[in-house]
Amino acid sequence: MIKAGIVGATGYAGAELARLLLQRNDCEIVGYGSKSFVGETYSGVFRNMYKYADISCVNDNIVELSKKVDVIFTATPQGFLAENINDEVLANSKVIDLSADFRIKDVDVYEKWYKLEHKSKNLIERAVYGLPELYREDIKNARLIANPGCYPTCSILSLNPLLKHKLIDENSIIIDAKSGTSGAGRSAKIDNLFCEVNENMKAYGIASHRHTPEIEEQLSKVANVPIVLSFTPHLVPMMRGILVTAYASLKPYVSKEDVKKAYESEYSNEKFIRLLRKNENAETRFVKGSNFVDIGYVIDKRTNRIVVTGAIDNLIKGAAGQAMQNMNLMFGIEEECGLKNLPISI
Amino acid sequence: MIKAGIVGATGYAGAELARLLLQRNDCEIVGYGSKSFVGETYSGVFRNMYKYADISCVNDNIVELSKKVDVIFTATPQGFLAENINDEVLANSKVIDLSADFRIKDVDVYEKWYKLEHKSKNLIERAVYGLPELYREDIKNARLIANPGCYPTCSILSLNPLLKHKLIDENSIIIDAKSGTSGAGRSAKIDNLFCEVNENMKAYGIASHRHTPEIEEQLSKVANVPIVLSFTPHLVPMMRGILVTAYASLKPYVSKEDVKKAYESEYSNEKFIRLLRKNENAETRFVKGSNFVDIGYVIDKRTNRIVVTGAIDNLIKGAAGQAMQNMNLMFGIEEECGLKNLPISI
Amino acid sequence: MIKAGIVGATGYAGAELARLLLQRNDCEIVGYGSKSFVGETYSGVFRNMYKYADISCVNDNIVELSKKVDVIFTATPQGFLAENINDEVLANSKVIDLSADFRIKDVDVYEKWYKLEHKSKNLIERAVYGLPELYREDIKNARLIANPGCYPTCSILSLNPLLKHKLIDENSIIIDAKSGTSGAGRSAKIDNLFCEVNENMKAYGIASHRHTPEIEEQLSKVANVPIVLSFTPHLVPMMRGILVTAYASLKPYVSKEDVKKAYESEYSNEKFIRLLRKNENAETRFVKGSNFVDIGYVIDKRTNRIVVTGAIDNLIKGAAGQAMQNMNLMFGIEEECGLKNLPISI
Amino acid sequence: MIKAGIVGATGYAGAELARLLLQRNDCEIVGYGSKSFVGETYSGVFRNMYKYADISCVNDNIVELSKKVDVIFTATPQGFLAENINDEVLANSKVIDLSADFRIKDVDVYEKWYKLEHKSKNLIERAVYGLPELYREDIKNARLIANPGCYPTCSILSLNPLLKHKLIDENSIIIDAKSGTSGAGRSAKIDNLFCEVNENMKAYGIASHRHTPEIEEQLSKVANVPIVLSFTPHLVPMMRGILVTAYASLKPYVSKEDVKKAYESEYSNEKFIRLLRKNENAETRFVKGSNFVDIGYVIDKRTNRIVVTGAIDNLIKGAAGQAMQNMNLMFGIEEECGLKNLPISI
Repeated sequence: MIKAGIVGATGYAGAELARLLLQRNDCEIVGYGSKSFVGETYSGVFRNMYKYADISCVNDNIVELSKKVDVIFTATPQGFLAENINDEVLANSKVIDLSADFRIKDVDVYEKWYKLEHKSKNLIERAVYGLPELYREDIKNARLIANPGCYPTCSILSLNPLLKHKLIDENSIIIDAKSGTSGAGRSAKIDNLFCEVNENMKAYGIASHRHTPEIEEQLSKVANVPIVLSFTPHLVPMMRGILVTAYASLKPYVSKEDVKKAYESEYSNEKFIRLLRKNENAETRFVKGSNFVDIGYVIDKRTNRIVVTGAIDNLIKGAAGQAMQNMNLMFGIEEECGLKNLPISI
Repeated sequence: MIKAGIVGATGYAGAELARLLLQRNDCEIVGYGSKSFVGETYSGVFRNMYKYADISCVNDNIVELSKKVDVIFTATPQGFLAENINDEVLANSKVIDLSADFRIKDVDVYEKWYKLEHKSKNLIERAVYGLPELYREDIKNARLIANPGCYPTCSILSLNPLLKHKLIDENSIIIDAKSGTSGAGRSAKIDNLFCEVNENMKAYGIASHRHTPEIEEQLSKVANVPIVLSFTPHLVPMMRGILVTAYASLKPYVSKEDVKKAYESEYSNEKFIRLLRKNENAETRFVKGSNFVDIGYVIDKRTNRIVVTGAIDNLIKGAAGQAMQNMNLMFGIEEECGLKNLPISI
Repeated sequence: MIKAGIVGATGYAGAELARLLLQRNDCEIVGYGSKSFVGETYSGVFRNMYKYADISCVNDNIVELSKKVDVIFTATPQGFLAENINDEVLANSKVIDLSADFRIKDVDVYEKWYKLEHKSKNLIERAVYGLPELYREDIKNARLIANPGCYPTCSILSLNPLLKHKLIDENSIIIDAKSGTSGAGRSAKIDNLFCEVNENMKAYGIASHRHTPEIEEQLSKVANVPIVLSFTPHLVPMMRGILVTAYASLKPYVSKEDVKKAYESEYSNEKFIRLLRKNENAETRFVKGSNFVDIGYVIDKRTNRIVVTGAIDNLIKGAAGQAMQNMNLMFGIEEECGLKNLPISI
Repeated sequence: MIKAGIVGATGYAGAELARLLLQRNDCEIVGYGSKSFVGETYSGVFRNMYKYADISCVNDNIVELSKKVDVIFTATPQGFLAENINDEVLANSKVIDLSADFRIKDVDVYEKWYKLEHKSKNLIERAVYGLPELYREDIKNARLIANPGCYPTCSILSLNPLLKHKLIDENSIIIDAKSGTSGAGRSAKIDNLFCEVNENMKAYGIASHRHTPEIEEQLSKVANVPIVLSFTPHLVPMMRGILVTAYASLKPYVSKEDVKKAYESEYSNEKFIRLLRKNENAETRFVKGSNFVDIGYVIDKRTNRIVVTGAIDNLIKGAAGQAMQNMNLMFGIEEECGLKNLPISI
């Protein structure tokens, strides 16, 4: 039985993690951490879990919590974990961080984009970027996982084969991403009200979104050259799902077959990645409620560009599901355990 | 390994059944029956099931199918099963019918409301109404299950304790029900287009909806007096979920405690029914994706009426999940098997 | 040119009023009152009005405002106007109040349901209930209008002919109402977030909603007997619209023709009320964006009940449009002026 | 009084045109043309227009219709008008075509992308592309208007100043467009059902959408060099609105000020184009229900790309509103007549 603590359990990612963990027989949630709902029953906050999580939320001290659990999940605001973690915590328990604190290796880049001083610089090197499709072996031995961002997960996996196999012009990448509203979190802001989000489509954070450097750092490693790209997120009037539409110029002489081989060589053994069939492009509904990444692409001969579409459920493969996938790897459990649900498209 | 055939697999209820069955290790779907998509890959029709259901749809003959499977699920138009079933089918396999053909014992009532001649009158008596909370023991021994309608499931379970315990005036019942759009099926009709359904609220089938006699027949049995009631369904711009708001006049001297006892005595051992806490009323999101029935109520002293709210997922407890619950009972499997997912509220 | 001030202009009702007034040539908005957005450009808060309302919001003093305008609209929290109005204000300008402060004549009922002490009891009698279809002549001469609530507008107009013509049992009335989310206002509450409202259906305020006594008081006047009824509002995942489904038992010997005559005699001259055709029931989309009230009904012979459906746009006929209709009457302008837009159904 | 006939009045664009025309005092709709609803009351098909359009739909012969009206609007399938128009029609009445038949001057391009033989090649030269911001003077004298497509309207107006003023690399243009579902039309297709569209985001027609050559032809004229670009439309779970996110590389030495001047010099006198303020980007809700085009942009110094966002209401500026704007110009009426409604954002 794995004992788990969730810090920041009353946001959407934390609640999704609770839901996934409660469905397993081999995990036990020891505590539901929250700042805003301390003392309230967890299932009073998320009534879908009534009868399954009827204990009260607590405002956890991470050091104390680490003594009681095997793994801590932190779904907390930026800076919180860096400020509260230390060697003792990591000696006591494993930590899977759903915030951005340990995702970016270049601390100057982190501090510039997040406008925060990093309070645990010394631990950055120990953190493993928790994208199993790229870092599976490292994850197995990690004590501290930086669980990837939702947009980066979908963007990196969509473009990885093209860059690794050097099929596209590295300076030509444009990622136009669309996200459901759960990605904006559960805080009470006018911008997130039903009447402000519904029947609307907008871009936000153009040329300034914090997931940009995370995507660039990872894709630079894959490509082995520095990547600078355009990333534009959009808010869609739906609850879950990220769709990435990525554009890049193919290098000369790259054939359709080259592209196909690149994707298949990287992903044909990946259980959670589905390379779509001919004439199929990714749609968010077909991954909703699952840990799948669906990827399709079209080669446009007129422009010599490739248009890749990738879709994930932002709360699962983009957050809680990937965290659980990492947990499975870290504890030597079958990687798909607890993540076998098929997408619930309607 | 239970071998199952789904006839009418390309509607929403059939697809939900496929999704639920594919998630189990002890079931195998032998055939996906369809009229409109014969020859097409099932996962081409429902791309969420890609990699899990990549075989082609077939136009099944029920007699032939019954020789190959342990259980047939029919999610077919009214009249289809009555026209195609016979003793041989029932000798070969069990049948769980998600259509209305065998739900109503009074065949005159059936023929009047459905405007159809019933083609297998002789089998009506052999059919068991598949509402486990009322007919669990009969279901265990049945060969033919009439899986209840979505509105009836929610309405009957919401009102059952009040009538059984004789707490309400039997002539005072009004059921105002609200359903997500998946209840309208997957046929290509203008009325069901996104732009016709979205941002709209309407009643339909006022005083004439076919689920009325089904609710009345079952509640009459429970109450042991004939029940005639008002039932008004509404279409809500959402995909899943039924909310029933039921009104009835309390009999004189009925106390809050009497009501509480009635619900608890009927349902406290029911795994899929959750009697809500004080000040909580049913909301469809809190059962979405699960087989739960959530029930709450308010007693209005000013009018001496009780207002009961009940919520189900129309595709699960209202269709495929209940069918699977019946299958479990019929095959001696744990009743909750394959139905343990918690609601996916967002 | 009518000079108008809007106090509480940054809520949804206030913004709708601004939008409607800005479309007219004979009105000028002198000030946009707000507590939360003082100093911000009004069109920065509501960017749909960019180029048309680019002045800053102010925190108005009502007495001072009354010296500068012909009419003040207050779309403010309960209690605000009662606390700030006085004879001087009414001497200076006309006032149309979109809050509930002056809707209920029985101040004890008001204070009990609203849990507030009324601070201007002496002005209650001077206020006219601003439902033109019932009080048109009084409105023409009023200085202070209590603009009706959204649910009451739809409920009262739907049931008025049946009660006035004594066709239904006065004790049998049940109003099951459904509202779009703009009715919940523009405040930053978790309950109103997109991810909490979307794909959900729920009742709220069962047996306790504050619009109940308003409906009862008005219907009691119409019926000339005290009316006590059940009123249950529901929240629908859409932005605009109220649908009322009202149930009542017909008195003996009441015919279909009696009902038809009652509705026609009350409403055939009303420009904003549309009595629907045979087999048509009210749907919110068909009134969206307009000041119309659509009314249909079905007589259920099995139960001898009538089921009435009424639909309005809660922000127009249920708030800002009705306020403008009242303004037109008070200033001797054509009643439909500024309200001639047809519903924008999709 | 302008007499107008609408052919194809029972689609969404036709219905929007009817709604807009019915709100005017100086226009009269002589006939509602339809193939599928002949004999049905128009307001029975679109019940929002009840009391205003209660005459029956007819299956018009265009030649006969042209004798009775001043202007014919055709909102018909591709190829229909080219097959039915002739010199006599144009001698009798003006024609504003909302289909694509006369939008593309290069008939080979038309026939290739639309996979149709053009049946009125001789009339292509007489047609004026009905984008008033580019062709205002030509429109005033035209007998046949090719009303632009929805995506082209938004795309062309968003990029026009950058190309005209030679500020961007002509080979670098990528248009990622997002549309509400009304753009998919009112035909009964499974793909457009509520449960297929809602809670989903997808691209479609990647590298093959028919609006691509229309955008390219117009932008080539503006730029005075041949433009080949990437255009990817997406379907958004909302009813109305198009958002264009366009990417292009700035030419060397282009400053922020150059960009600002280009937009202002082209659009500062355009009543329907709103250049957004600093830090504002286009959102579809802020133009919904209006004829506005909102345009914003961000210059990304890291990539030296400009990201332009443009928003329109696809049924108004993208179809019926623009058609009415063209009608106003053709009949010497104030260009904004009938189009002064402010956006109805919620």
